[in-house]
Amino acid sequence: MSKYLHKIGGELWFKEEMEEGIGHSARVDKVLFDDEIDHQHLVVFENAKYGRMFALNGIIQMTSSDEFVYHEMLTHVPLYAHGEAKRVLIIGGGDGGILREVLRHKSVQSATLVEIEKDVIEFARQWFPETSNGAFDDPRTNIVITDGAKYVEETDERFDVVIVDSTDPVGPGEVLFTEEFYAGCKRVLNTGGILTVQGGLPFLQPWEPKMIKERQEKSFANVEFYVAAVPTYTGGLMTLGFASDAQYPHDETWLARRTSANPLEMGYYTPEVHAAAFALPAYIRKGLE
Amino acid sequence: MSKYLHKIGGELWFKEEMEEGIGHSARVDKVLFDDEIDHQHLVVFENAKYGRMFALNGIIQMTSSDEFVYHEMLTHVPLYAHGEAKRVLIIGGGDGGILREVLRHKSVQSATLVEIEKDVIEFARQWFPETSNGAFDDPRTNIVITDGAKYVEETDERFDVVIVDSTDPVGPGEVLFTEEFYAGCKRVLNTGGILTVQGGLPFLQPWEPKMIKERQEKSFANVEFYVAAVPTYTGGLMTLGFASDAQYPHDETWLARRTSANPLEMGYYTPEVHAAAFALPAYIRKGLE
Repeated sequence: MSKYLHKIGGELWFKEEMEEGIGHSARVDKVLFDDEIDHQHLVVFENAKYGRMFALNGIIQMTSSDEFVYHEMLTHVPLYAHGEAKRVLIIGGGDGGILREVLRHKSVQSATLVEIEKDVIEFARQWFPETSNGAFDDPRTNIVITDGAKYVEETDERFDVVIVDSTDPVGPGEVLFTEEFYAGCKRVLNTGGILTVQGGLPFLQPWEPKMIKERQEKSFANVEFYVAAVPTYTGGLMTLGFASDAQYPHDETWLARRTSANPLEMGYYTPEVHAAAFALPAYIRKGLE
Repeated sequence: MSKYLHKIGGELWFKEEMEEGIGHSARVDKVLFDDEIDHQHLVVFENAKYGRMFALNGIIQMTSSDEFVYHEMLTHVPLYAHGEAKRVLIIGGGDGGILREVLRHKSVQSATLVEIEKDVIEFARQWFPETSNGAFDDPRTNIVITDGAKYVEETDERFDVVIVDSTDPVGPGEVLFTEEFYAGCKRVLNTGGILTVQGGLPFLQPWEPKMIKERQEKSFANVEFYVAAVPTYTGGLMTLGFASDAQYPHDETWLARRTSANPLEMGYYTPEVHAAAFALPAYIRKGLE
């Protein structure tokens, strides 16, 4: 039993320590996996309320009950804003959740997923098959196993939307938060292209969106942030970055025309929520200044 | 040491069980209070990240670092929407946080706070003096120690805004979620008056806003909900209820005129956030149907 699992009052609990001294906790109704892979600790377990849960080095990354929030918001905001994305690049996202959402758009002709470790995809397919839900077998899907930063620096392919579904800027995920990486994302985008990125939990990590902003502004004319509330991410609102050389309106009437042209059943996203997500609470706005 | 505190790996931790098998956890850097008062268990402790934390019967109610989110959103949304509220009624809210925010509005000539137990106010003044921040001593403040449901049924006073800052609809808080209580709130409101209420965490308690809606619609022509993300409330977005016989626009330009007439430094609220908060994620909207 790893250090992330604890016997408390006769029950087994997973205790997160997302930042020092705080986190979520969840009763472990069934341990499915609790071991190291490539020097990272992975725990997969069942919880009656949140469903199947996955933690990496003790931090909750995904649960089957609320993954829809993050995957919908990181995907549909750039895709509906763009309106006719044909070619989409996903950096990271080895669980296939972003890929699943991208492929729901009729306009999309190809989706390239660049993951650094093949094991990540295999692990997710084994324990979270509903997250990819067949997306890896879609004929439009193209899987590339390589370093995402290297890929955007070298590829001749071009894309309408790039989505960075990374872990946090510590350890292996760090390279996906550099100025050079963002320049690479800009390099592979067609005119009018959009980049979205996972941008941290600003109540606990106010420096993270600010750092992203400063680094992306070296490559993009417009760098904005929007928010989504994922119940099992500790710290309230998550910020998601939205960068482009084009200026997209965050207008619900304009967006509603796009969603009615390609209507999708959603758990979180609506055109109103898309527009509203760009209204940042004062503390997040101040943190970006 | 109560059952909410646990020795884990040589440290003392508070483990919440907000719903069965899930909750937040926080390292207890200093226990300030851990005992029963009137058959309810209260814990107050210090945590390096969240500051001073208060839990009632094992559920986190308030922390000094994020109480501003809830207090601002439950107060400034009705007060700025109304625009010239002179008389405000607060039901519950014995910690004084809502009262503090209400009194920041120049238009407010009197604020009546109805709390069922005097002890609640004393306890909060002792352990969370910054939450009321002198509001109990303001000459416009009127404290009434009685049952809130009884008060709105019997009083001859009338108000422009009523704010219900209650605990959840179990135990002592239950009476503040009844049809009769909402009829009482309607009875004490002037024409154009607004009622706002704490409306639960719909990811975990989807029945709660729906129940409030059905019961308030017996008394009010317009019953709406808006959201706020309080980092230490387990379950993501909290819904707050907004009821009136008048129809208020949730328009940021209209609201910005009101905030510039009475500008206040905020941590969360902005006119844009006010308008955006009424855009409900799909799962919350579906839960209300």
